[in-house]
Amino acid sequence: MLTLYYAAHTCALATHIALEEAGADYNLVRVDFAKTEQCGADYLKVNPKGRVPALATEHGVLTETPALLIYVAERYSNEGLAPLDDAFDLARTQAFNSYLCSTVHVAHAHRMRGHRWADDEATIAGMQRAVPRSVAAAFQLIEDGLLKGPWVLGERFSVCDAYLFTLAQWLEADGVDPARFPRVIAHRSRVSEREAVKRAIEAEVAKP
Amino acid sequence: MLTLYYAAHTCALATHIALEEAGADYNLVRVDFAKTEQCGADYLKVNPKGRVPALATEHGVLTETPALLIYVAERYSNEGLAPLDDAFDLARTQAFNSYLCSTVHVAHAHRMRGHRWADDEATIAGMQRAVPRSVAAAFQLIEDGLLKGPWVLGERFSVCDAYLFTLAQWLEADGVDPARFPRVIAHRSRVSEREAVKRAIEAEVAKP
Repeated sequence: MLTLYYAAHTCALATHIALEEAGADYNLVRVDFAKTEQCGADYLKVNPKGRVPALATEHGVLTETPALLIYVAERYSNEGLAPLDDAFDLARTQAFNSYLCSTVHVAHAHRMRGHRWADDEATIAGMQRAVPRSVAAAFQLIEDGLLKGPWVLGERFSVCDAYLFTLAQWLEADGVDPARFPRVIAHRSRVSEREAVKRAIEAEVAKP
Repeated sequence: MLTLYYAAHTCALATHIALEEAGADYNLVRVDFAKTEQCGADYLKVNPKGRVPALATEHGVLTETPALLIYVAERYSNEGLAPLDDAFDLARTQAFNSYLCSTVHVAHAHRMRGHRWADDEATIAGMQRAVPRSVAAAFQLIEDGLLKGPWVLGERFSVCDAYLFTLAQWLEADGVDPARFPRVIAHRSRVSEREAVKRAIEAEVAKP
């Protein structure tokens, strides 16, 4: 049985959606960021990185969203959540997920997690000022072509859609005018209507 | 036939090494960062992100190092460059590569590419001051356990080794004392002795 460690309003939602889409049987464990549980001794035994998501399996704990998404797609391969049988299409899938984790999520993280890359308040404030510009630049490439439509990879829903939906939740809080990205917003709306997505969000925002 | 677009002293070296380890037949195209060719119209047709690496295939162009590494491992699957047949081991591989692209490389990039996340010189200088600390923190997790030894995943060389070797090239320039990471440095030395690695580096640093 799998166990997903998550916190609400984080990128863990992407893996959570993938598990719901797969019809997986799994436990859900909330890590309370308000109490900095992610840095506590108990959680660091699960994930020494002190981050979410983490996915505990029979074989050990896995981390990093792109890895978890493909793992879920492989473990529940009958659900067709990634094009596993074609090396080129799988690489396109991976390239999209990698862009989200290393460029889109990183741009966003400069608003709330600036201490990762700066040691003084003035620098952290300077980074925050640039977030609307850097996040918008990252989403422009998605709007202009990485998002094929209607789903990220084209005609078929995949784990990429769960991931893009998750990061697109943060656009407004990052100071980006969503009207600039009509295709991304239409996609966000399309994903929000899926039952698996509704279940994942409901589970995360319900009071523990 | 594959074509790898690269620039010297970038993370493109990881894919270059993987191609050499695979015994692949490929073309190598240098993108001259000194002339900002990566932002020129010709290159943006290849990769609209304006970055390296990019790998042109018969089916289209692929980007993002973690995607390229697994693609090379799948395309030349007889070479055993990734544990493709085990979902958990493959996820460990992906988790390592994802950590490198989204945490290690990102920490490093704050030294030379600060304009991505800041719009004023004072903030860019503030980010640069934190690079020795943030890069060292990222490598500490590798030193403490992500690197199993003798190779990243354990007993067998994989694409993870090509990628770690590539990013570990930058430690000294990032202001990190390599003596803090003896296991990482021993690994770097071990990888540097491979003939495929020597060929890749020789091809990149040779005058065009």
